[in-house]
Amino acid sequence: MPTRARERAAYDHETVHAILDAGYVCHLGFVRDGAPVVLPTLYGRVGDRLYLHGSTGARPLRMAGGAPDPGLPVCVTVTHVDGLVLARSAFHHSINYRSVVVHGTAHQVTDHAEKTAALDALVDQVVPGRAADSRPGNTKELAATAVIRLDLREVSAKIRTGGPHDEPEDLALPHWSGVLPVAPVYGAPIPSDDLAPGTALPAYLSALSPVAES
Amino acid sequence: MPTRARERAAYDHETVHAILDAGYVCHLGFVRDGAPVVLPTLYGRVGDRLYLHGSTGARPLRMAGGAPDPGLPVCVTVTHVDGLVLARSAFHHSINYRSVVVHGTAHQVTDHAEKTAALDALVDQVVPGRAADSRPGNTKELAATAVIRLDLREVSAKIRTGGPHDEPEDLALPHWSGVLPVAPVYGAPIPSDDLAPGTALPAYLSALSPVAES
Repeated sequence: MPTRARERAAYDHETVHAILDAGYVCHLGFVRDGAPVVLPTLYGRVGDRLYLHGSTGARPLRMAGGAPDPGLPVCVTVTHVDGLVLARSAFHHSINYRSVVVHGTAHQVTDHAEKTAALDALVDQVVPGRAADSRPGNTKELAATAVIRLDLREVSAKIRTGGPHDEPEDLALPHWSGVLPVAPVYGAPIPSDDLAPGTALPAYLSALSPVAES
Repeated sequence: MPTRARERAAYDHETVHAILDAGYVCHLGFVRDGAPVVLPTLYGRVGDRLYLHGSTGARPLRMAGGAPDPGLPVCVTVTHVDGLVLARSAFHHSINYRSVVVHGTAHQVTDHAEKTAALDALVDQVVPGRAADSRPGNTKELAATAVIRLDLREVSAKIRTGGPHDEPEDLALPHWSGVLPVAPVYGAPIPSDDLAPGTALPAYLSALSPVAES
């Protein structure tokens, strides 16, 4: 987003963690053959570590592996859009948002216990409580899944809140100005075709969806 | 996202354009001192070009400029999350999504007419119809705004739709499975404190917001 005076940068881990915990899709950046690559991927946070997920064939995960593992320089960015900021002037239009940028070197997770915990965290990041209510990965599935770890050391958050800031001479213009809030909203759950009749919607899902029938 | 068989890759411009047109925030990746950087930023599409926006002090925009302008190798990614895919097994959990990845070299826009049109496109990308209902940028504002252009030449889209795909032996497990749809929803518009009383909410805004009072 264009940098304006009303944006606030933060580096405290509490703010960073709160923004990360509010999402589950990040944009993973890395360099391939000298050129930037940005891919959406799922993440989970465990303490001061971020875990990212992919198939073992995926390029960034292969690049992060090897023995010894040299690591892969990455930038991971998480962004939440909270509102459209409509000013009277085109120039002062903006977006209310919260974002976190993490720089660092990602490493493949090879330890079995750490990998299992990371995959649980990835599932629970998307739907809190879901990992305990699903069949855990077996040996073959764990082997087919690559997980990379990134320490939350070099982090920064940016937050913009509030209304537009028009020039004084624009205040009399006839254009509506203000904020249009926006947030992700869950719809009614769609059961699988092959779901056993009578399988109840779990509370952690009906809690997410305002239109869920339990 | 982890690559699974049910994901579909597309390269036709119609699919790519539709995914781009459904959003307004991209993640811009570039390389700085050999390391990847990923930043959220606003974009607008005009035909087969993407325009990105920022203050003239912003690093990627400075790097794209100069005379002669060598351009800045970038990767621009736009992602929409459409649903949470809950399988009986942790391994088959996924996300329904649409994403576009654009690779290319970004250049600063210096032509006045192109820059003005690009800024209109940026505003209209966020709220269609808004550019015509706001005060256009003046010379000073245009000078303070940097716009970079990226041709939509090297593009690819990825789309995942549908329900979870559990292993046959997992179908009898007692876990609920299916899809929880998710989409951004606009809330009630919040007028600026200094909005002139009686300023009507324009139709292009009430059309976006299901709870808008006009």
